[in-house]
Amino acid sequence: MASRVSLDRSLPNQRIPKAVVRRLSLYARALQRLEGGASEKVSSEDLANMLGYKAAQVRKDLAYFGQFGTPGFGYQVASLRAEIKRILGADREFLVAVVGVGNLGSALLSYGGFLKQGYRIVCGFDIDPEQTHAREGAVRVHHVRDLEKKIKELRIDIVILAVPPDAVQAIADRCVAASILGILNFVPTRITVPKNVHLHQVDLALEMESLGFYIRLQSE
Amino acid sequence: MASRVSLDRSLPNQRIPKAVVRRLSLYARALQRLEGGASEKVSSEDLANMLGYKAAQVRKDLAYFGQFGTPGFGYQVASLRAEIKRILGADREFLVAVVGVGNLGSALLSYGGFLKQGYRIVCGFDIDPEQTHAREGAVRVHHVRDLEKKIKELRIDIVILAVPPDAVQAIADRCVAASILGILNFVPTRITVPKNVHLHQVDLALEMESLGFYIRLQSE
Repeated sequence: MASRVSLDRSLPNQRIPKAVVRRLSLYARALQRLEGGASEKVSSEDLANMLGYKAAQVRKDLAYFGQFGTPGFGYQVASLRAEIKRILGADREFLVAVVGVGNLGSALLSYGGFLKQGYRIVCGFDIDPEQTHAREGAVRVHHVRDLEKKIKELRIDIVILAVPPDAVQAIADRCVAASILGILNFVPTRITVPKNVHLHQVDLALEMESLGFYIRLQSE
Repeated sequence: MASRVSLDRSLPNQRIPKAVVRRLSLYARALQRLEGGASEKVSSEDLANMLGYKAAQVRKDLAYFGQFGTPGFGYQVASLRAEIKRILGADREFLVAVVGVGNLGSALLSYGGFLKQGYRIVCGFDIDPEQTHAREGAVRVHHVRDLEKKIKELRIDIVILAVPPDAVQAIADRCVAASILGILNFVPTRITVPKNVHLHQVDLALEMESLGFYIRLQSE
Protein backbone atom coordinates (compact mmCIF):
# COMPACT_ATOMS: atom_id res chain seq x y z
CA MET A 1 0.00 0.00 0.00
CA ALA A 2 1.22 3.46 -0.85
CA SER A 3 0.83 5.67 2.17
CA ARG A 4 -0.98 8.98 2.07
CA VAL A 5 0.69 12.33 1.76
CA SER A 6 -0.58 14.52 4.55
CA LEU A 7 0.21 18.10 5.33
CA ASP A 8 2.23 18.28 8.52
CA ARG A 9 0.47 21.02 10.47
CA SER A 10 3.41 21.44 12.81
CA LEU A 11 5.53 22.91 10.00
CA PRO A 12 5.45 26.68 10.04
CA ASN A 13 4.42 28.42 6.83
CA GLN A 14 7.83 29.98 6.24
CA ARG A 15 9.63 26.64 6.29
CA ILE A 16 8.32 25.50 2.89
CA PRO A 17 10.31 27.19 0.12
CA LYS A 18 8.43 28.60 -2.85
CA ALA A 19 10.52 26.44 -5.19
CA VAL A 20 9.16 23.33 -3.45
CA VAL A 21 5.57 24.49 -3.91
CA ARG A 22 6.21 25.17 -7.60
CA ARG A 23 7.65 21.72 -8.08
CA LEU A 24 4.57 20.24 -6.36
CA SER A 25 2.46 21.78 -9.13
CA LEU A 26 4.72 20.19 -11.73
CA TYR A 27 4.55 16.80 -9.99
CA ALA A 28 0.75 16.99 -10.07
CA ARG A 29 0.80 17.67 -13.81
CA ALA A 30 3.26 14.85 -14.48
CA LEU A 31 1.07 12.48 -12.47
CA GLN A 32 -1.95 13.63 -14.48
CA ARG A 33 -0.15 12.58 -17.67
CA LEU A 34 0.52 9.16 -16.11
CA GLU A 35 -3.08 8.59 -15.03
CA GLY A 36 -4.88 6.07 -17.19
CA GLY A 37 -1.50 4.79 -18.38
CA ALA A 38 -0.08 1.29 -18.20
CA SER A 39 1.01 1.46 -14.56
CA GLU A 40 -0.84 2.60 -11.45
CA LYS A 41 2.40 3.31 -9.68
CA VAL A 42 5.46 5.45 -10.33
CA SER A 43 8.90 5.55 -8.75
CA SER A 44 10.52 8.77 -7.57
CA GLU A 45 13.16 8.15 -10.28
CA ASP A 46 10.58 8.02 -13.06
CA LEU A 47 8.68 11.03 -11.74
CA ALA A 48 11.95 12.95 -11.46
CA ASN A 49 13.03 11.96 -14.98
CA MET A 50 9.78 13.28 -16.46
CA LEU A 51 10.72 16.74 -15.21
CA GLY A 52 14.50 16.71 -15.44
CA TYR A 53 15.00 16.52 -11.66
CA LYS A 54 16.74 13.96 -9.49
CA ALA A 55 14.85 11.33 -7.50
CA ALA A 56 16.27 12.69 -4.25
CA GLN A 57 14.70 16.07 -5.06
CA VAL A 58 11.25 14.53 -5.45
CA ARG A 59 11.58 12.60 -2.19
CA LYS A 60 12.90 15.62 -0.31
CA ASP A 61 10.14 17.90 -1.63
CA LEU A 62 7.37 15.48 -0.67
CA ALA A 63 8.93 14.96 2.76
CA TYR A 64 7.91 18.52 3.66
CA PHE A 65 4.35 17.27 3.73
CA GLY A 66 4.79 14.14 5.82
CA GLN A 67 4.99 10.45 4.98
CA PHE A 68 4.61 9.30 1.41
CA GLY A 69 5.15 6.30 -0.86
CA THR A 70 6.71 2.97 0.03
CA PRO A 71 10.42 2.16 -0.44
CA GLY A 72 10.85 -0.26 -3.35
CA PHE A 73 7.26 0.30 -4.48
CA GLY A 74 7.01 3.99 -5.26
CA TYR A 75 3.85 6.08 -5.31
CA GLN A 76 0.32 5.28 -6.40
CA VAL A 77 -0.25 7.69 -9.27
CA ALA A 78 -3.88 8.62 -8.65
CA SER A 79 -3.70 8.97 -4.89
CA LEU A 80 -0.46 10.96 -4.91
CA ARG A 81 -1.93 13.36 -7.43
CA ALA A 82 -5.11 13.78 -5.39
CA GLU A 83 -3.06 14.46 -2.26
CA ILE A 84 -0.85 17.01 -3.98
CA LYS A 85 -3.91 18.79 -5.35
CA ARG A 86 -5.31 18.89 -1.84
CA ILE A 87 -2.02 20.26 -0.48
CA LEU A 88 -2.01 22.90 -3.23
CA GLY A 89 -5.50 23.97 -2.24
CA ALA A 90 -7.18 22.91 -5.47
CA ASP A 91 -10.07 21.59 -3.39
CA ARG A 92 -11.02 25.16 -2.51
CA GLU A 93 -11.90 27.75 -5.14
CA PHE A 94 -10.16 31.13 -5.03
CA LEU A 95 -11.95 34.07 -6.61
CA VAL A 96 -9.65 36.32 -8.62
CA ALA A 97 -9.87 39.85 -10.06
CA VAL A 98 -7.58 41.59 -12.54
CA VAL A 99 -6.85 45.26 -11.79
CA GLY A 100 -5.79 47.22 -14.87
CA VAL A 101 -7.30 45.97 -18.12
CA GLY A 102 -4.82 47.24 -20.69
CA ASN A 103 -3.16 44.83 -23.09
CA LEU A 104 -1.70 42.63 -20.38
CA GLY A 105 -4.80 42.69 -18.16
CA SER A 106 -6.99 41.91 -21.19
CA ALA A 107 -4.78 38.96 -22.04
CA LEU A 108 -5.10 37.65 -18.48
CA LEU A 109 -8.89 38.12 -18.50
CA SER A 110 -9.31 36.46 -21.88
CA TYR A 111 -7.05 33.45 -21.43
CA GLY A 112 -9.31 30.75 -20.13
CA GLY A 113 -6.47 28.31 -19.99
CA PHE A 114 -3.99 30.03 -17.79
CA LEU A 115 -5.76 29.27 -14.55
CA LYS A 116 -6.20 25.72 -13.39
CA GLN A 117 -9.04 24.23 -11.43
CA GLY A 118 -9.46 26.01 -8.13
CA TYR A 119 -9.02 29.56 -9.45
CA ARG A 120 -11.78 31.59 -11.11
CA ILE A 121 -11.47 35.07 -12.58
CA VAL A 122 -14.56 36.95 -11.48
CA CYS A 123 -14.06 40.47 -12.85
CA GLY A 124 -11.66 43.17 -13.95
CA PHE A 125 -11.17 46.76 -12.80
CA ASP A 126 -10.04 49.70 -14.91
CA ILE A 127 -10.16 53.50 -14.88
CA ASP A 128 -12.01 53.32 -18.20
CA PRO A 129 -14.04 50.09 -18.32
CA GLU A 130 -15.55 51.00 -21.72
CA GLN A 131 -12.21 51.32 -23.44
CA THR A 132 -10.65 48.04 -22.38
CA HIS A 133 -9.55 45.50 -24.97
CA ALA A 134 -11.12 42.57 -23.14
CA ARG A 135 -12.66 40.25 -25.72
CA GLU A 136 -16.27 39.23 -26.00
CA GLY A 137 -17.10 36.54 -23.52
CA ALA A 138 -14.56 37.81 -21.02
CA VAL A 139 -15.81 38.75 -17.58
CA ARG A 140 -17.21 42.13 -16.59
CA VAL A 141 -14.87 45.09 -16.06
CA HIS A 142 -15.84 47.46 -13.22
CA HIS A 143 -14.65 51.02 -12.65
CA VAL A 144 -11.65 51.10 -10.33
CA ARG A 145 -13.41 53.67 -8.09
CA ASP A 146 -15.57 50.74 -6.92
CA LEU A 147 -12.55 48.56 -6.13
CA GLU A 148 -13.03 48.13 -2.36
CA LYS A 149 -16.81 47.79 -2.62
CA LYS A 150 -16.69 45.12 -5.34
CA ILE A 151 -13.84 43.17 -3.73
CA LYS A 152 -16.00 42.76 -0.63
CA GLU A 153 -19.29 42.26 -2.47
CA LEU A 154 -17.86 39.60 -4.83
CA ARG A 155 -15.66 38.04 -2.10
CA ILE A 156 -12.48 38.36 -4.17
CA ASP A 157 -9.57 36.44 -2.59
CA ILE A 158 -6.72 37.32 -4.97
CA VAL A 159 -5.98 40.33 -7.19
CA ILE A 160 -3.71 40.30 -10.22
CA LEU A 161 -2.13 43.73 -10.67
CA ALA A 162 -1.50 44.95 -14.23
CA VAL A 163 -1.76 48.72 -13.70
CA PRO A 164 0.75 51.44 -14.68
CA PRO A 165 3.87 51.39 -12.44
CA ASP A 166 3.13 54.69 -10.71
CA ALA A 167 -0.29 53.45 -9.60
CA VAL A 168 0.63 50.02 -8.33
CA GLN A 169 1.43 50.74 -4.66
CA ALA A 170 -1.73 52.82 -4.17
CA ILE A 171 -3.86 50.11 -5.79
CA ALA A 172 -2.18 47.43 -3.67
CA ASP A 173 -2.90 49.49 -0.53
CA ARG A 174 -6.57 49.75 -1.48
CA CYS A 175 -6.81 46.00 -2.10
CA VAL A 176 -5.17 45.31 1.26
CA ALA A 177 -7.62 47.68 2.96
CA ALA A 178 -10.43 45.66 1.35
CA SER A 179 -9.04 42.52 3.07
CA ILE A 180 -7.62 40.76 0.03
CA LEU A 181 -5.64 37.58 0.86
CA GLY A 182 -3.08 37.55 -1.93
CA ILE A 183 -1.61 39.66 -4.73
CA LEU A 184 0.04 38.51 -7.96
CA ASN A 185 1.96 41.56 -9.19
CA PHE A 186 2.81 41.75 -12.90
CA VAL A 187 4.03 45.33 -12.65
CA PRO A 188 7.85 45.61 -12.66
CA THR A 189 7.77 47.81 -9.56
CA ARG A 190 8.50 46.75 -5.99
CA ILE A 191 5.53 47.08 -3.67
CA THR A 192 5.18 46.44 0.02
CA VAL A 193 2.23 44.84 1.75
CA PRO A 194 1.55 43.77 5.36
CA LYS A 195 2.92 40.37 6.40
CA ASN A 196 -0.53 38.75 6.48
CA VAL A 197 -1.05 39.42 2.74
CA HIS A 198 0.74 37.06 0.34
CA LEU A 199 2.56 38.77 -2.48
CA HIS A 200 4.06 37.04 -5.51
CA GLN A 201 5.98 39.06 -8.02
CA VAL A 202 5.92 37.89 -11.65
CA ASP A 203 9.21 39.18 -12.95
CA LEU A 204 9.57 38.91 -16.71
CA ALA A 205 12.96 40.63 -16.76
CA LEU A 206 14.25 37.92 -14.44
CA GLU A 207 13.02 35.18 -16.80
CA MET A 208 14.77 36.88 -19.68
CA GLU A 209 18.02 37.40 -17.79
CA SER A 210 18.04 33.77 -16.76
CA LEU A 211 17.52 32.65 -20.37
CA GLY A 212 20.28 34.99 -21.55
CA PHE A 213 22.67 33.59 -18.95
CA TYR A 214 22.34 30.02 -20.22
CA ILE A 215 22.62 31.09 -23.86
CA ARG A 216 25.79 33.02 -23.11
CA LEU A 217 27.30 30.19 -21.05
CA GLN A 218 26.81 27.76 -23.93
CA SER A 219 28.22 30.06 -26.57
CA GLU A 220 31.48 30.67 -24.70
CA MET B 1 40.65 44.46 -1.50
CA ALA B 2 37.50 42.69 -2.61
CA SER B 3 38.41 39.98 -5.04
CA ARG B 4 36.81 39.61 -8.45
CA VAL B 5 33.98 37.27 -9.23
CA SER B 6 34.98 35.24 -12.21
CA LEU B 7 33.04 32.62 -14.08
CA ASP B 8 34.61 29.25 -13.47
CA ARG B 9 34.85 27.80 -16.99
CA SER B 10 35.37 24.29 -15.67
CA LEU B 11 31.81 24.16 -14.35
CA PRO B 12 29.47 22.49 -16.82
CA ASN B 13 26.39 24.44 -17.86
CA GLN B 14 23.96 22.03 -16.20
CA ARG B 15 25.54 22.42 -12.78
CA ILE B 16 24.22 25.93 -12.16
CA PRO B 17 20.57 25.76 -11.06
CA LYS B 18 18.10 28.22 -12.58
CA ALA B 19 17.17 29.42 -9.09
CA VAL B 20 20.78 30.54 -8.56
CA VAL B 21 20.77 32.52 -11.81
CA ARG B 22 17.51 34.20 -10.83
CA ARG B 23 18.91 35.17 -7.46
CA LEU B 24 21.99 36.64 -9.21
CA SER B 25 19.64 39.03 -11.03
CA LEU B 26 18.12 40.03 -7.70
CA TYR B 27 21.56 40.55 -6.13
CA ALA B 28 22.49 42.84 -9.03
CA ARG B 29 19.36 44.92 -8.46
CA ALA B 30 19.95 45.12 -4.71
CA LEU B 31 23.54 46.24 -5.34
CA GLN B 32 22.25 48.87 -7.76
CA ARG B 33 20.10 50.29 -4.95
CA LEU B 34 23.20 50.43 -2.71
CA GLU B 35 25.38 52.18 -5.26
CA GLY B 36 25.98 55.83 -4.44
CA GLY B 37 24.93 55.10 -0.86
CA ALA B 38 26.87 55.69 2.35
CA SER B 39 29.06 52.61 2.10
CA GLU B 40 31.08 51.20 -0.75
CA LYS B 41 30.95 47.74 0.70
CA VAL B 42 28.23 45.33 1.77
CA SER B 43 28.30 42.13 3.82
CA SER B 44 26.63 38.93 2.67
CA GLU B 45 24.33 39.34 5.69
CA ASP B 46 23.16 42.80 4.60
CA LEU B 47 22.74 41.75 0.98
CA ALA B 48 20.78 38.69 2.10
CA ASN B 49 18.58 40.76 4.41
CA MET B 50 17.63 43.13 1.58
CA LEU B 51 16.05 40.18 -0.23
CA GLY B 52 14.80 38.01 2.61
CA TYR B 53 17.49 35.35 2.14
CA LYS B 54 20.15 34.02 4.47
CA ALA B 55 23.80 35.08 4.22
CA ALA B 56 24.84 31.47 3.57
CA GLN B 57 22.59 31.44 0.50
CA VAL B 58 24.29 34.51 -0.96
CA ARG B 59 27.76 33.06 -0.32
CA LYS B 60 26.79 29.66 -1.75
CA ASP B 61 25.23 31.20 -4.88
CA LEU B 62 28.25 33.36 -5.62
CA ALA B 63 30.60 30.41 -5.03
CA TYR B 64 29.28 28.85 -8.25
CA PHE B 65 31.18 31.54 -10.10
CA GLY B 66 34.51 31.33 -8.34
CA GLN B 67 36.18 33.41 -5.64
CA PHE B 68 34.48 36.48 -4.28
CA GLY B 69 34.58 38.97 -1.42
CA THR B 70 36.84 38.96 1.60
CA PRO B 71 35.94 37.35 4.95
CA GLY B 72 35.24 40.06 7.51
CA PHE B 73 35.15 42.74 4.84
CA GLY B 74 32.33 41.73 2.53
CA TYR B 75 31.92 42.75 -1.10
CA GLN B 76 32.66 45.99 -2.89
CA VAL B 77 29.25 47.13 -4.09
CA ALA B 78 30.19 48.53 -7.50
CA SER B 79 32.61 45.82 -8.54
CA LEU B 80 30.39 42.95 -7.41
CA ARG B 81 27.49 44.41 -9.37
CA ALA B 82 29.64 44.85 -12.48
CA GLU B 83 30.84 41.26 -12.22
CA ILE B 84 27.33 39.87 -11.76
CA LYS B 85 26.15 41.84 -14.77
CA ARG B 86 29.01 40.36 -16.76
CA ILE B 87 28.13 36.86 -15.55
CA LEU B 88 24.49 37.43 -16.51
CA GLY B 89 25.55 38.47 -19.99
CA ALA B 90 24.41 42.06 -19.68
CA ASP B 91 27.60 43.11 -21.46
CA ARG B 92 26.28 41.57 -24.65
CA GLU B 93 23.01 42.65 -26.23
CA PHE B 94 20.45 40.00 -27.14
CA LEU B 95 18.00 40.82 -29.92
CA VAL B 96 14.46 39.69 -29.17
CA ALA B 97 11.28 39.18 -31.23
CA VAL B 98 7.71 38.58 -30.04
CA VAL B 99 5.76 36.02 -32.06
CA GLY B 100 1.99 36.45 -31.75
CA VAL B 101 0.88 40.04 -31.20
CA GLY B 102 -2.52 39.58 -29.57
CA ASN B 103 -3.24 41.15 -26.20
CA LEU B 104 -0.33 39.49 -24.43
CA GLY B 105 2.14 39.97 -27.29
CA SER B 106 1.10 43.62 -27.59
CA ALA B 107 1.68 44.09 -23.88
CA LEU B 108 5.16 42.60 -24.19
CA LEU B 109 5.98 44.77 -27.23
CA SER B 110 4.68 47.95 -25.59
CA TYR B 111 6.20 47.59 -22.12
CA GLY B 112 9.51 49.36 -22.32
CA GLY B 113 10.29 48.55 -18.75
CA PHE B 114 10.09 44.83 -18.65
CA LEU B 115 13.44 44.21 -20.29
CA LYS B 116 16.65 45.31 -18.65
CA GLN B 117 19.84 46.48 -20.26
CA GLY B 118 21.22 43.82 -22.57
CA TYR B 119 17.92 42.82 -24.19
CA ARG B 120 16.27 44.71 -27.03
CA ILE B 121 12.93 43.92 -28.66
CA VAL B 122 13.47 44.31 -32.39
CA CYS B 123 10.13 43.32 -33.94
CA GLY B 124 6.93 41.34 -33.65
CA PHE B 125 5.36 38.70 -35.88
CA ASP B 126 1.65 38.04 -36.41
CA ILE B 127 -0.66 36.40 -38.93
CA ASP B 128 -2.39 39.78 -39.28
CA PRO B 129 0.16 42.57 -38.66
CA GLU B 130 -2.40 45.30 -39.46
CA GLN B 131 -4.83 44.18 -36.78
CA THR B 132 -2.48 43.99 -33.82
CA HIS B 133 -3.09 46.07 -30.73
CA ALA B 134 0.54 47.17 -30.44
CA ARG B 135 0.58 50.82 -29.40
CA GLU B 136 2.09 53.72 -31.27
CA GLY B 137 5.81 53.82 -30.80
CA ALA B 138 6.06 50.08 -30.45
CA VAL B 139 8.32 48.22 -32.86
CA ARG B 140 7.34 46.95 -36.31
CA VAL B 141 5.15 43.84 -36.65
CA HIS B 142 6.00 41.56 -39.59
CA HIS B 143 3.84 38.87 -41.17
CA VAL B 144 4.56 35.49 -39.65
CA ARG B 145 5.09 33.99 -43.14
CA ASP B 146 8.42 35.89 -43.14
CA LEU B 147 9.44 34.46 -39.74
CA GLU B 148 12.57 32.53 -40.79
CA LYS B 149 13.72 35.20 -43.25
CA LYS B 150 13.39 38.06 -40.76
CA ILE B 151 14.93 36.10 -37.86
CA LYS B 152 18.07 35.64 -39.95
CA GLU B 153 18.03 39.11 -41.52
CA LEU B 154 17.57 40.91 -38.19
CA ARG B 155 19.86 38.49 -36.30
CA ILE B 156 17.22 37.69 -33.67
CA ASP B 157 18.70 35.71 -30.74
CA ILE B 158 15.59 35.07 -28.63
CA VAL B 159 11.89 34.71 -29.47
CA ILE B 160 9.06 35.25 -27.02
CA LEU B 161 6.10 33.03 -27.96
CA ALA B 162 2.60 34.38 -27.35
CA VAL B 163 0.69 32.54 -30.10
CA PRO B 164 -2.47 30.39 -29.76
CA PRO B 165 -1.76 27.04 -28.03
CA ASP B 166 -2.36 24.90 -31.13
CA ALA B 167 0.22 26.88 -33.11
CA VAL B 168 3.04 27.02 -30.57
CA GLN B 169 4.99 23.82 -31.41
CA ALA B 170 4.96 24.56 -35.16
CA ILE B 171 6.14 28.13 -34.54
CA ALA B 172 8.85 26.92 -32.16
CA ASP B 173 10.03 24.43 -34.80
CA ARG B 174 10.27 27.21 -37.39
CA CYS B 175 12.25 29.43 -34.99
CA VAL B 176 14.61 26.53 -34.23
CA ALA B 177 15.08 25.92 -37.96
CA ALA B 178 16.02 29.60 -38.30
CA SER B 179 18.81 29.04 -35.72
CA ILE B 180 17.32 30.88 -32.77
CA LEU B 181 19.32 30.53 -29.52
CA GLY B 182 16.55 30.74 -26.93
CA ILE B 183 12.78 30.69 -26.49
CA LEU B 184 10.69 32.25 -23.74
CA ASN B 185 7.33 30.51 -23.99
CA PHE B 186 4.28 32.27 -22.53
CA VAL B 187 1.84 29.76 -24.00
CA PRO B 188 0.54 27.26 -21.40
CA THR B 189 1.41 24.34 -23.67
CA ARG B 190 4.44 22.08 -23.40
CA ILE B 191 6.77 22.29 -26.35
CA THR B 192 9.94 20.39 -27.14
CA VAL B 193 13.08 21.83 -28.70
CA PRO B 194 16.54 20.42 -29.43
CA LYS B 195 19.02 20.40 -26.53
CA ASN B 196 21.11 23.22 -28.02
CA VAL B 197 18.15 25.64 -27.86
CA HIS B 198 17.38 27.11 -24.44
CA LEU B 199 13.72 27.03 -23.49
CA HIS B 200 12.18 28.82 -20.52
CA GLN B 201 8.53 28.35 -19.77
CA VAL B 202 6.68 31.25 -18.14
CA ASP B 203 3.96 29.46 -16.27
CA LEU B 204 1.30 31.76 -14.86
CA ALA B 205 -0.81 28.88 -13.51
CA LEU B 206 2.19 27.83 -11.44
CA GLU B 207 2.53 31.31 -9.96
CA MET B 208 -1.13 31.31 -9.04
CA GLU B 209 -1.04 27.82 -7.52
CA SER B 210 1.95 28.78 -5.45
CA LEU B 211 0.18 31.90 -4.17
CA GLY B 212 -2.94 29.86 -3.38
CA PHE B 213 -0.89 27.35 -1.43
CA TYR B 214 0.50 29.95 0.96
CA ILE B 215 -2.89 31.62 1.41
CA ARG B 216 -4.48 28.29 2.24
CA LEU B 217 -1.69 27.29 4.63
CA GLN B 218 -2.11 30.52 6.58
CA SER B 219 -5.88 30.28 6.81
CA GLU B 220 -5.88 26.77 8.27
